Amino acid sequence: MTISSATALAHPNIAFIKYWGNRDDSLRLPQNGSISMNLAELSTRTMLTFDPSLPRDIFDLNGTRQSGESLHRVTNHLNIIRGLRGVSVHAHIMSENNFPADAGIASSASAFAALTLAAVSALGIEMSEKDLSRLARRGSGSACRSIPGGYVEWYRGNTDVDSFAVSFAEPGHWDLADCIAIVDIGQKKVGSSLGHTLAKSSPLQEARVLDADRRIDICKQAIRNRDFTALAEVIELDSNLLHAIMMTSHPPLYYWMPATLEIMYAVQSWRKTGTPVAFTVDAGPNVHVICESDSSKQVRQRLSKMPMVKDVIVTHPGGKARLV
Amino acid sequence: MTISSATALAHPNIAFIKYWGNRDDSLRLPQNGSISMNLAELSTRTMLTFDPSLPRDIFDLNGTRQSGESLHRVTNHLNIIRGLRGVSVHAHIMSENNFPADAGIASSASAFAALTLAAVSALGIEMSEKDLSRLARRGSGSACRSIPGGYVEWYRGNTDVDSFAVSFAEPGHWDLADCIAIVDIGQKKVGSSLGHTLAKSSPLQEARVLDADRRIDICKQAIRNRDFTALAEVIELDSNLLHAIMMTSHPPLYYWMPATLEIMYAVQSWRKTGTPVAFTVDAGPNVHVICESDSSKQVRQRLSKMPMVKDVIVTHPGGKARLV
Repeated sequence: MTISSATALAHPNIAFIKYWGNRDDSLRLPQNGSISMNLAELSTRTMLTFDPSLPRDIFDLNGTRQSGESLHRVTNHLNIIRGLRGVSVHAHIMSENNFPADAGIASSASAFAALTLAAVSALGIEMSEKDLSRLARRGSGSACRSIPGGYVEWYRGNTDVDSFAVSFAEPGHWDLADCIAIVDIGQKKVGSSLGHTLAKSSPLQEARVLDADRRIDICKQAIRNRDFTALAEVIELDSNLLHAIMMTSHPPLYYWMPATLEIMYAVQSWRKTGTPVAFTVDAGPNVHVICESDSSKQVRQRLSKMPMVKDVIVTHPGGKARLV
Repeated sequence: MTISSATALAHPNIAFIKYWGNRDDSLRLPQNGSISMNLAELSTRTMLTFDPSLPRDIFDLNGTRQSGESLHRVTNHLNIIRGLRGVSVHAHIMSENNFPADAGIASSASAFAALTLAAVSALGIEMSEKDLSRLARRGSGSACRSIPGGYVEWYRGNTDVDSFAVSFAEPGHWDLADCIAIVDIGQKKVGSSLGHTLAKSSPLQEARVLDADRRIDICKQAIRNRDFTALAEVIELDSNLLHAIMMTSHPPLYYWMPATLEIMYAVQSWRKTGTPVAFTVDAGPNVHVICESDSSKQVRQRLSKMPMVKDVIVTHPGGKARLV
């Protein structure tokens, strides 16, 4: 095999209905389906070169050579993709995020979506969006949602074959904004992969999962109808359900900081006085403040005035993973 | 009937395994059993006088004449007790709390325990502790736990007859302290009685209730064995389960303030460095910091140094409701 190369770009996504806990940790088959929106202004760009002269995979992230768990996870994922072609050639991967890693903005989603698309393309494999999504899921569950564009549903499915994500509304369908209030740019205390394995230790996880299809239906309807009031209620509920599981796991996981709670309350008070705004919090302390784009300037200003907010990143609905 | 009077004193209690949600709101039959400790230094003292010349009940709380819901609830409870004797004579009730009302220290528990004992006694009714506990429960669920002394279990029961509280360890069995970190002495946003009716609107409440007997067993064993490590784990889990329900109710109830979270995290970090200390939070923002009495001086000092802590009240295991 000769040298072959491809560069792909994918956006992270913010989950409105969250993924937490796997039925199968190795295949990353989720316990419940989920809903998300891609974030246009944020992206991971990954250039991948298969090179027969390489003795092993090389992975540079934001210019820093990776080793240990970070490299291992990429190699494992490439092994699955190489297996599709029956090749064993190693790759040099150069990946750049334009946003801070591991602070509640799911960098692993855009990273494994871009890696999957770049690797598949460099190997010359023809693959449907559905199969790309399935494959990206193996690297990081939520990466399957960063393959299609806009507003996305990840079907829980029953096996590897039917657990994948599809777009149900284009980015232009509803001009929402995600104003990400950064309160801490440090590393996560506990990464999502470990967190997912703890989900089942909460006495509440089963109930959260059993209620998920109901929330998915409400959330999809709210997006289809551009009904912000309904969206606000269901995404805040779902975010609280996620953190309820985390804080009642064994051991408990705490991602909220005092500043997180302060922003959550501010958002609710702004909504009460008429601004279409709602919060959702991932596995980190930052608050994703979702609003209609008309209000994003005002929301950004209000957030920026809060002393514990270090930065506000304003993003809009993004497209699918693509070759560049 | 002539004038008759009695004065009773009862302590509030801090729940280690919490009560939230009723099977029967009118009889205050709880969805799950609970465990608590009475707080010796805090009390409600209630002097009650049945006086045939009164045209209606008069209720003075901390020197202030009550009306509306506050008076209504006392009258309703007295009506149940008057019904036991078939009398309709009205009462003058003078009640004093030596602690701030409605800030997460359950004043309704000590209030209805003291009221029940005073009223029953003034009417000359002979009643077992069990029946007093059942009766106090009708006024405020957690009041049934303030009738017996020390460490108390409230049996969920199936009907009015078998839902009552008993002591399973004397106050002297284990010298714990409850260092109450006051972060807000304002009124609760939503009172417990309304909160209980919202519990079933959380998709998680059923799972919390189903797991309650397991937590009760662990908590009782931990207290019997004076096993602080086991106690810390189960009370923090149970507290988080309570707030998980509250924050996922419809509408959601938020009692934690940013300062609440800050204290919860501080407590966990102190425990990691060897201090036997754990948190529990009721339907309010204040944090009950439970520790062994040997450590209470150090814990009080540490809490007092935190800028958002307005006051620290240190309490120890208290006795049963009694006539004074």
